[in-house]
This record gives sequence, C-alpha cells and structure tokens, in this order.
Amino acid sequence: MSFAREGFGYRVLARSRENRARVGVFTTPHGVVTTPAFMPVGTRGTVKGVQPEELFSLGSRMILANTYHLALRPGEDVVRELGGLHRLMNWNGPILTDSGGYQVFSLADLMKLDEGGVTFRSVIDGASLRFTPERVIEIERALGADVAMAFDHCADDPLDRAKVEDATLRTHRWLERCVRRHRELDGEGSGQTLFGIVQGGAFEDLRARSVEAVTSHDLVGYAIGGVSVGETRDAMRIAVRSAARRLPEDRPRYLMGVGTPLDFVEAVAEGIDLFDCVTPTRHGRTKQAFSSQGLVNIENARFARDPRPLDPRCACPACRGFSRGTLRHLAKSDEMLGAILLTLHNLRFFHALFDDLRAAIEFGGWAELAARVEGDMARVLPPEL
Amino acid sequence: MSFAREGFGYRVLARSRENRARVGVFTTPHGVVTTPAFMPVGTRGTVKGVQPEELFSLGSRMILANTYHLALRPGEDVVRELGGLHRLMNWNGPILTDSGGYQVFSLADLMKLDEGGVTFRSVIDGASLRFTPERVIEIERALGADVAMAFDHCADDPLDRAKVEDATLRTHRWLERCVRRHRELDGEGSGQTLFGIVQGGAFEDLRARSVEAVTSHDLVGYAIGGVSVGETRDAMRIAVRSAARRLPEDRPRYLMGVGTPLDFVEAVAEGIDLFDCVTPTRHGRTKQAFSSQGLVNIENARFARDPRPLDPRCACPACRGFSRGTLRHLAKSDEMLGAILLTLHNLRFFHALFDDLRAAIEFGGWAELAARVEGDMARVLPPEL
Repeated sequence: MSFAREGFGYRVLARSRENRARVGVFTTPHGVVTTPAFMPVGTRGTVKGVQPEELFSLGSRMILANTYHLALRPGEDVVRELGGLHRLMNWNGPILTDSGGYQVFSLADLMKLDEGGVTFRSVIDGASLRFTPERVIEIERALGADVAMAFDHCADDPLDRAKVEDATLRTHRWLERCVRRHRELDGEGSGQTLFGIVQGGAFEDLRARSVEAVTSHDLVGYAIGGVSVGETRDAMRIAVRSAARRLPEDRPRYLMGVGTPLDFVEAVAEGIDLFDCVTPTRHGRTKQAFSSQGLVNIENARFARDPRPLDPRCACPACRGFSRGTLRHLAKSDEMLGAILLTLHNLRFFHALFDDLRAAIEFGGWAELAARVEGDMARVLPPEL
Repeated sequence: MSFAREGFGYRVLARSRENRARVGVFTTPHGVVTTPAFMPVGTRGTVKGVQPEELFSLGSRMILANTYHLALRPGEDVVRELGGLHRLMNWNGPILTDSGGYQVFSLADLMKLDEGGVTFRSVIDGASLRFTPERVIEIERALGADVAMAFDHCADDPLDRAKVEDATLRTHRWLERCVRRHRELDGEGSGQTLFGIVQGGAFEDLRARSVEAVTSHDLVGYAIGGVSVGETRDAMRIAVRSAARRLPEDRPRYLMGVGTPLDFVEAVAEGIDLFDCVTPTRHGRTKQAFSSQGLVNIENARFARDPRPLDPRCACPACRGFSRGTLRHLAKSDEMLGAILLTLHNLRFFHALFDDLRAAIEFGGWAELAARVEGDMARVLPPEL
C-alpha cells in the first residue's frame, strides 16, 4: 500500500504475520519517518532540556509542539517572523503541531464553548482569546509544522455517552471547517498537511461513526483522539481497536497522547504508526528512569554507592558516562544535569523500544517482545534490593 | 623556565614583550592545560547544565569542584567508592578541588573557628562537622582531584588589617599542617598535588610576607586567595600585583574566584595562569549573555523578533543553531534549554577570550586586545536599541 500527495506520502514496507502491526515510511517536506515511531513532545518549541542534535542521536525523527502554548507565547506571528517552528526549534526534521483543543479544554481558565469555537482566558496574562477551527488552522500555518492537527472537541469522560456523542459530532462539524480553511490556504501546497481526529470515547459504534465521518475527507493521515484522558485500559483498548481497524490501510494512524511501553505494544499490534507523550521527558525531570527493572526512582538510597550504569545495554549519554551513584547524587542535589541525563536516557529507552517493535514486525518474535515488555514494566523491585 | 615532579609539571612556552603575562603548559596526571586558562566551576560534581563532552568542545581543559559541597553530599567516601571525582563527573581531564575554606566561612551555619580548625553545621541536615587542615587534605585525597587546595582562612574584609593579619598567619600555620598531611599521604605519589594559598588582603606588606611563608614550602603551584570577596578593583589590583610579582616564575599561579573579562586581562598581564569563577554558568542561568555588547539580558523585549544569532562570530551551539528571538522565548518561558544554551555560550565566550589572551602573549597586540575587552564590557546598549 502506498499513497502520495504534494510532498507527503505513506508506504507500508512490511506487515506483521502475528497481528495488525506494520512498518511504514511517512514522508514529509522535512524528511521521512520510519513508523511505528515515537514523537517526543516539545511543548513550547523545545523538548525540555534536550538539544536538537541530541534528539537526533537518540533516535527522534519527528517531534511534536503545542499550538496552544506557542500561540500564547511567543505568539504565532513571532514564530513566523523568526522563520517558523523548524528554525525556532533548530529542528530540520518533521514536526507536528497539535491543535490546542486538548489544552483549551483542560488548561484554559474560564473556557466557554459554543458551536463557533471556544473563548478562553490566557493562563499567561489573562487576555481573552478565541479559538475557532478556522483560526486554529491559521495559527498552525503560521507556526509552519509539517503536520497540523484539526481542531477537535475532546469530551472529558469517555464513558459519558451523551457528552461523548455531542463532542464527537461537533468534532465532525469542526473538521469540515478545518478542511475548508486548509484548502483555502493552499492545502498541501503550503508545505503543511492536515490530519483529522477520530473521537467517540469508549463506544465502538461512536468510534465507527467517527471514522466514517472523518475519513469522508481524503486526508494525508488520521489520528485517534480522546484517549489518555484518565480512562481505564479496557476503555482505551475499545477506543483504539474500534477506530484503528476501520481506518484506511494506506494512511498513517496516530494515537494521540499515548503513552507507556505497554500501551505501545498493544496499539502497534492494532496498526498504530505514530505516538506522542510527555512520559519520557516528564519522568526524567521527576527522577524516574525507564529500565528493564520497570520505572525506577533514581533517588532511592540503594543506588547511592552503585557504580554500575543505569542500564548496561543502553547507549545513551547517561548510561555511557555515569554510574547510578552519580545519577542519584545529581538527582538528590536537584542538579540540571540529573534531569538532562535521565531525560536523554528515557528518550533513548523509548526509541530503542520502537526499534525492537519494528524489528519484530519485520522479522517476527512479537510474542516474546510483548512478554519481555510486560515483564520489565510489571516488575518493581522492593526498595531494599 | 620549567619544573617537573612526579606526574606534575609546568613549563613557560612564551612570554609577552608588553607585560608579565606568559603562556605555559601545566601538566597533571590527567593531561595538560595550556595557560592562561579558565576553569569552569563544577560545585557539586557537575558544571551546571553542561555535559562533559560539551565542556571539552567549548574549550574547557581543567575544571574545579568544591570540597565543601561534595563532603556534605554525597560525602567523600561515596565519591571514592564510585571511583573518585573523575569517574563521578565523567571528566577525564585535570580537576582541582578547592579546600572548602571559603564556603566554611561564607556558607556554613553557626561556624566556630579555633586554632585547630573550624566546627560548623551542615546546611543540608544540620549535622555538626569539623574541618581541620589534616581532615581537609584527607577529604580531598578521597575525592581524588589532580590538584588539592590547602585549607586557608580568608578574612571577610580585605581592608581590616588586624583581621587580615590574623587570618594570614593562621593560613601559614595551617599550610604547615596541610603539607605534613599531604606528605604523610604519599605526596604527589598519590596522583594529587597540593597548592598553597597566599593571603594578605589588600596590604602589600602582608601579601609579601604571605608569599614568603607559603613559598617556603616547595609546592607544585601557588594560589592567590582572599580576592573576589566584594573588595574594590583597586584593592584587588594591590592584592594580585603584590603577590604575583613575588611568586616563583617556574610554578603556575592561580587567582581564586576571579572573575570577569576585565579582571582576566589585568591579572594575566600580572602573570596569573589559572582562574575559576561561577560567572559564565551563573549568568547563563539568570539569562545574562556575555557578548561584544557587554553583558546582555536576553529577556529584553528588543530581542523578541530578532532573527540574528546572539553573536555571529561565536561557534557555540546557541549561536550556531538559535536566533536571539528563540533564546529570548526560551528564557521568558523558563525553559531548561534557555539556561543550557546561554551557559554554553558564556563558557565559549570565556574560553575564546583566553584563546585571544594566549595569542596576544605569543604574537603581540596586547594593548589592542585590552582596549577591545574594555570597550566591549563597558558598552551597555540602551534598552530601546
């Protein structure tokens, strides 16, 4: 399967014999991404504490930035004047911007929703702001990422059927307006494409309806939204499965805001291609390291005199150069270098997992890999060890 | 002039025709340092926000760590068990540890001084601790830097003659004890050498007496202490000149805790070889950048839409990859990457200045260089520009 449109494209390179997973190449004007892939989050135009060359070394190929945060500061006009998001971030690879919908509904002060859009108060200076589907597309154009996400309405409880249905149908109406504005602004000729977002909460029929409505627009890629909002694992499974199995085979599928190693294994097996989450970077700053021992708190006293690397099989700067004892000392001392090194490690851990996932899709061994990840992540060493 | 002892040495390579400055090579068990050189400060075993490979790329060849901070946390026994300071910091070049004297007198809670040493309360856990000259040498041995500084007594007011004289004479008595303990612990055979510290405040006769007493011990290097404690520029000049001109020509001279570009020009012209200061790293974290426009506050609104690099002639990662507008955005957003990039820039600025100083010593042009630095640092652009 393959698909191409004005600088964008997607091609399936290999399919798993064991499940619905596939290895693909997603092409953008700023380069290609081999999928499944994890996108680090660069909320304000920076993946916290990491320089762009480091991201590339760790295996990052596409990164995410947040429209809401950048529109508030420094403002999309400033970003455009400074040469766009790629110049701002000093990242010449693919970038995706979310639409700000999630933040408007979760972060904004005094948010007021109507059919036209959302009026809210800036958390930075209290100014009153309005996001409409058209306005969001204009902001994303000014930011200049390769992929702009449509402005959607994400219900806060994926099990409240009335709320979910209302948000899902509004998302469909808003997508019409996003697509229209995207086409008015040159469509893919602008160098930017638009991904639509499927909603529908944890209801299979609503997800099915949403896939139908969203894929009625012939877009370069489709995303699954409304997950990772605090739902149960079962609710997430229903949402992902009902949507992923109905999305077209020849377009990339992006599961928004997910998540953890176990989530990746399950969602990739359902045919998901792109992921983003703050887990590796946020955990790095809170002194949590991903490892074959699960998520370990490096501040634990058992690491104080431990001369071994965090993970002897890891090639990140933290594991190559520093002992667990040093990492603990840096963390206990709240030194920037501690947060930096753990962030680098966690990002490398995530990208290495995606290397393994792609290898298992191409060459087999999915069950063993899934068992290993489940074992690693379930194990929590008692503090005395 | 040249000097060598058990893995340590110093050799003058060139002398200025215009002043007392010299270019030299200081040899240690972990490599050589071409002097004059600036040592970044790695207080707790990390130069804040900077990875060791980055330090080397920026031009750092020797770094400083603080005995007081490391003795409190993680403790010198932990550092030794983890393989010593070089392993802890992942820095295989030369390291110098200060003696903790300065911090004991300036930071410690409820400090009590007697002829034997100093008793103080840990700022971390309130524990009562005692530093004696012998104990400090033992701690520094456990830390394992290439150069250990003697435990000295630095008077808080360099113009209070009675206080300065008392502290200077105590420093001499304590040096005797440091030297004895250093020799008992294998001397330079341990891989670590001891630098003595000249005190004497802003009094030429006391500085002269102190040089005489300190150089009565045949040490690998000598330092000038008791400066950069809030004195006037004139007081610092007297202190540096009276000491530097009397110190032996064939040993490295280290001016402790200094300072700024203008200080370097003056002190190098007096024959100083080594410097350390928190200026580049601390200013980086407080959003101040050194430049040919003086010290600029990158948060200034005039940088918001400025697409130019901070300094077009600078090869640091901040100037190579980011605009002033981005650096301002990162700083205003309190993003770690802002502090990291400004720190890298400031360190490169300092090391580039030392490159220029060494070139002017070897090839001439000192007056022009001094005028340029004075002009750069005096200039402060009005905020509207």
